[in-house]
Amino acid sequence: MHAVQTALDLGEPGEPGEPGKSLHERDFGEERLARAALTRLAEPGDTAVGKWLLERPAAELLQLIRTRAGHPALHLDQDRLAGLNARLAGCDPAADLARVEAVGGRFVTPAEPEWPSQLNDLGEAMPVGLWVRGTGSLRLLALRSVAVVGARACTAYGAHVAGELAAQLAERGWVVVSGAAYGIDSAAHRGALAVGGMTVGVLACGVDVAYPRGNTELIRRISGQGQLVSELPPGEHPNRFRFVLRNRVIAALTRGTVVVEAALRSGALSTARRAHALNRHTMGVCGPVTSELSAGVHALLRSGAATLVTDAAEVVELIGAIGEDLAPLRSSEVRPRDVLRPMAAQVLEAIPSGRDGAPVEYLARRSGFPADEVLKQLYELCSLGFVQREGSHWRVIR
Amino acid sequence: MHAVQTALDLGEPGEPGEPGKSLHERDFGEERLARAALTRLAEPGDTAVGKWLLERPAAELLQLIRTRAGHPALHLDQDRLAGLNARLAGCDPAADLARVEAVGGRFVTPAEPEWPSQLNDLGEAMPVGLWVRGTGSLRLLALRSVAVVGARACTAYGAHVAGELAAQLAERGWVVVSGAAYGIDSAAHRGALAVGGMTVGVLACGVDVAYPRGNTELIRRISGQGQLVSELPPGEHPNRFRFVLRNRVIAALTRGTVVVEAALRSGALSTARRAHALNRHTMGVCGPVTSELSAGVHALLRSGAATLVTDAAEVVELIGAIGEDLAPLRSSEVRPRDVLRPMAAQVLEAIPSGRDGAPVEYLARRSGFPADEVLKQLYELCSLGFVQREGSHWRVIR
Repeated sequence: MHAVQTALDLGEPGEPGEPGKSLHERDFGEERLARAALTRLAEPGDTAVGKWLLERPAAELLQLIRTRAGHPALHLDQDRLAGLNARLAGCDPAADLARVEAVGGRFVTPAEPEWPSQLNDLGEAMPVGLWVRGTGSLRLLALRSVAVVGARACTAYGAHVAGELAAQLAERGWVVVSGAAYGIDSAAHRGALAVGGMTVGVLACGVDVAYPRGNTELIRRISGQGQLVSELPPGEHPNRFRFVLRNRVIAALTRGTVVVEAALRSGALSTARRAHALNRHTMGVCGPVTSELSAGVHALLRSGAATLVTDAAEVVELIGAIGEDLAPLRSSEVRPRDVLRPMAAQVLEAIPSGRDGAPVEYLARRSGFPADEVLKQLYELCSLGFVQREGSHWRVIR
Repeated sequence: MHAVQTALDLGEPGEPGEPGKSLHERDFGEERLARAALTRLAEPGDTAVGKWLLERPAAELLQLIRTRAGHPALHLDQDRLAGLNARLAGCDPAADLARVEAVGGRFVTPAEPEWPSQLNDLGEAMPVGLWVRGTGSLRLLALRSVAVVGARACTAYGAHVAGELAAQLAERGWVVVSGAAYGIDSAAHRGALAVGGMTVGVLACGVDVAYPRGNTELIRRISGQGQLVSELPPGEHPNRFRFVLRNRVIAALTRGTVVVEAALRSGALSTARRAHALNRHTMGVCGPVTSELSAGVHALLRSGAATLVTDAAEVVELIGAIGEDLAPLRSSEVRPRDVLRPMAAQVLEAIPSGRDGAPVEYLARRSGFPADEVLKQLYELCSLGFVQREGSHWRVIR
């Protein structure tokens, strides 16, 4: 447990490091380490922990757990405190941070610029922090993201529709978020990857764990071309409880959720219901009324909680609407180029000024960065309103 | 043209005849004959004719057409008057009435008890009268009716769903109304007929014309077990204009319209839009988003003009709702048995008093009437709240 007491300053990956940290920054480092520890101690969505963290420091909570001491603002009885305390034995946040860094990842807390602030809508159920694998800013990617989820045991129809939808969304510059499960999730991730699109997999296990096993290669591809995100620290494995709670992160992170196929008791419906409760655009792709795997979607549509969509254009019509709380920066708000980080600025510089723009491969050659990196910078630039995607080409917005 | 001037009293088929008609009744006979003539002279949905008839006698209009005389309340210019006048040569309403009677039919005007008063919602576009083939009261059948319409060139999926839906609606005691066209219409009629259900075909040609040719046998079966209805007099043939106008009758006649499959420019959508404009329940059965034959239904559902339904139970949930303008007579309003016509009373008498009731064949044997006749009486009794259907059995409502 000594690691928790070490003010280990990890800096921020992707942000330029600064020498000579102030006391405030050291505190911030301690707080960050405490939050990393809490992701190991508490299960995702623990509202007693969440309620505390909305108003008080994580380090103080960690101290209460270590000493099993009560506090008027901590709604955990002795049994639950003892349960959290019991997990301290296997908790070494500094090691976890090193472990995730070793696979190209990092830990992001709500205090950091990369935090997707829409997750704050979850209130007490807000994640303590997110373990992220893959470069680029999760915050910027999430600004222009949409969840495509559905049944694991999907039909050929569902897989086809999910793949097409994801590909078309990616071609319109939208980031496709899903859960990396079999079936619809896999089809959605693959659809986005296939057109050189950006996709984010929100896992119910550590970002260094490939689950399900059969998706090992897909998850590897997502971490390369896109991002893996999880509330759970490295090495953790999923369980039914964690799958359900993971869904709230997918719902909150994105501008909207599309359910492609779902039986009447499908977990994908919980994501949709969450999205609806969070005032996100909630959409369903219908199917044959004779298909049990569409019955859940139809029930959702009939309940009025979701809008029927049949293609990517209809999805974008909803989630791309102007005047929304979560609207990405619009052209009038475009930040001057000089605030861009160097790599983003160089990628932007590499785009030809003509109306046609250029594909990723061209920009990779011209900028000298790997194609995956260029792609992430492009999606960020897209969220910031500098560029737009049209099919395989990216062009600068005037 | 002499026939128009003959006060031919045809009485009312299905109603007991009365000897010694009063002057009022003779006028009524003249008016009826004039309306029969107008169905030959004017095209369905002629709003100038309809506007006149809302306030003035048909016989007077006929006189204006004969003399080509203008009238302040008649919004027809000389050319159109001349057009109507030109058709007088082929107009013999007495012969038409005899012709329809010869095939077991009759002519019903808004002044008669059999008139389905919900057609009055069409206002100026209200039919001048209806040519009906098949026994039973159209008014009572229409009270508990639902339209199932859709594409002619439907898929196997659409035909399957329409047939199943119609069968299940018929098994719940609902009358299935459609247009006797190929595709969804045929599947709907057949579905109802197959389970010994009642079905009404609303034609865009005379009720003695089998159109389309390939549906000759189906149309014959509908006229036997169900009813054929048309605004057009015997012998008339359909055209594109008449098909579209026929759709407004289907929409207005029924409690609701279900579109099963429709391409983006399908005529079935015009029926649905009419139903929506008339405040009827408008419903759509979704299908694969990859199917062009479901694209029209999906567009309808997305417009908010229709509700997504996936089976008969969901249709009945909507159209069977209590407190609607068009609600059938409810148990509290059940008319005493002694107002029933003799055949209906005898069929009611034949139903065993137990909770199980009995199938049509049993009631036919017990009452001594043909099965088709018994079926019609049962549907009427159902509309009046005396009996209910459960699968193949009919039982008395306490």
